[in-house]
Amino acid sequence: MKPLAPRILAFDVFGTVVDWHGSIRREIDAMALGVDGAAFALAWRAGYQPAMRRVMSGELGWTLIDDLHRMILDEILERFGVRHLSEAEKLHLNKVWHRLDPWPDTVRGLTRLKQRTIICTLSNGNIGLLTHMAKHGGLPWDCVLSAEVFKAYKPDPSTYLGVAKVFDVAPTAVMLVAAHQDDLAAARACGLQTAYIERPAEFGTDRLKDVSPDPANTLHARDFEDLADQLGA
Amino acid sequence: MKPLAPRILAFDVFGTVVDWHGSIRREIDAMALGVDGAAFALAWRAGYQPAMRRVMSGELGWTLIDDLHRMILDEILERFGVRHLSEAEKLHLNKVWHRLDPWPDTVRGLTRLKQRTIICTLSNGNIGLLTHMAKHGGLPWDCVLSAEVFKAYKPDPSTYLGVAKVFDVAPTAVMLVAAHQDDLAAARACGLQTAYIERPAEFGTDRLKDVSPDPANTLHARDFEDLADQLGA
Repeated sequence: MKPLAPRILAFDVFGTVVDWHGSIRREIDAMALGVDGAAFALAWRAGYQPAMRRVMSGELGWTLIDDLHRMILDEILERFGVRHLSEAEKLHLNKVWHRLDPWPDTVRGLTRLKQRTIICTLSNGNIGLLTHMAKHGGLPWDCVLSAEVFKAYKPDPSTYLGVAKVFDVAPTAVMLVAAHQDDLAAARACGLQTAYIERPAEFGTDRLKDVSPDPANTLHARDFEDLADQLGA
Repeated sequence: MKPLAPRILAFDVFGTVVDWHGSIRREIDAMALGVDGAAFALAWRAGYQPAMRRVMSGELGWTLIDDLHRMILDEILERFGVRHLSEAEKLHLNKVWHRLDPWPDTVRGLTRLKQRTIICTLSNGNIGLLTHMAKHGGLPWDCVLSAEVFKAYKPDPSTYLGVAKVFDVAPTAVMLVAAHQDDLAAARACGLQTAYIERPAEFGTDRLKDVSPDPANTLHARDFEDLADQLGA
């Protein structure tokens, strides 16, 4: 079935638009802390879902991702035996999430897609983080939407439906673009169209992830250039 | 006193970035409704402050500017004796606020300022409106902030302070840029820096407004290119 041309493309960011694993690994390795950058990146990211669940369950009040990242960082620095960083160094390191590099196809693909559609983020990252990241990587968003706007984290329906509401369109006029099937499934349950993007090296080139198509998605694309081809952009 | 280099420039939009009066006048005149476009534009805008006050006082619940514009439009169409527009035509006309043209210096000035500072909107316009307007006029925002994010209209302090909070900086690191002294005064009371922009023809070239400097502002600029000059961008 030919997909209905979406009026709004909403992008998941971490892993879909930017390479968090490679970016953090490179930064940690460059700091020469004597820890394995790849393992450190994985540990930091692994703390993310449990921390968000503590917010969603009400155990923690509403907390920005910047602050969740810092809580996790303090814990893994201890676990990896890194005890000599100053507060300024920790603050700087925590903001590595503002400096994540885009995948090689990201900017070219977004620039093409932006010609005929509104392109926005839909990320659990906070607005400040996403804005700095866009500046760092040259990401040409029309609009930065975030869990911070909706005061709820994905996969809460109010985030997916919130995009449709912001632009005053039906949910089916919005397409979520993500490299994660669970995010897409939650969007689909709200009536959004969905596009899966293969990011096999999201967790590193030595542990490639399964990028098999799920026929429930509206589209399955290799990368953002392929998505632009399929959408005729 | 040399101003502290601001890290964030937050722009008022209607009148400061875009020429609402000229844009609406041209659209109304082109529709050949037999009404004076300039007078219609002024009447539409004049309904804005009272409508917002009804929201701020709690008489109306939280209402997007798109919906306030529509309430005012229905009233002034009646007042100007325009009774033959279809619902689709009214919907389209109401979205003229999404199609307002930038002032001639706007895009060049913003593009220069964006090189060294984060540039964002801080408008009572809703996010969808501001995003469509940016697409229409090629406005290169890093981020679209709106009353809709803070669930309060300017001059509520939570809007000005909200910008500082989003970017995790002190209020004095944010500079509000606006063509309205009352907006700037409210921002200053919250600790923000302020830049006044002269837009003498905001209400039309035949009723030029007073653009005298107020020494309380950090900067006074003729237009956005002048602002870029003064900020060394």
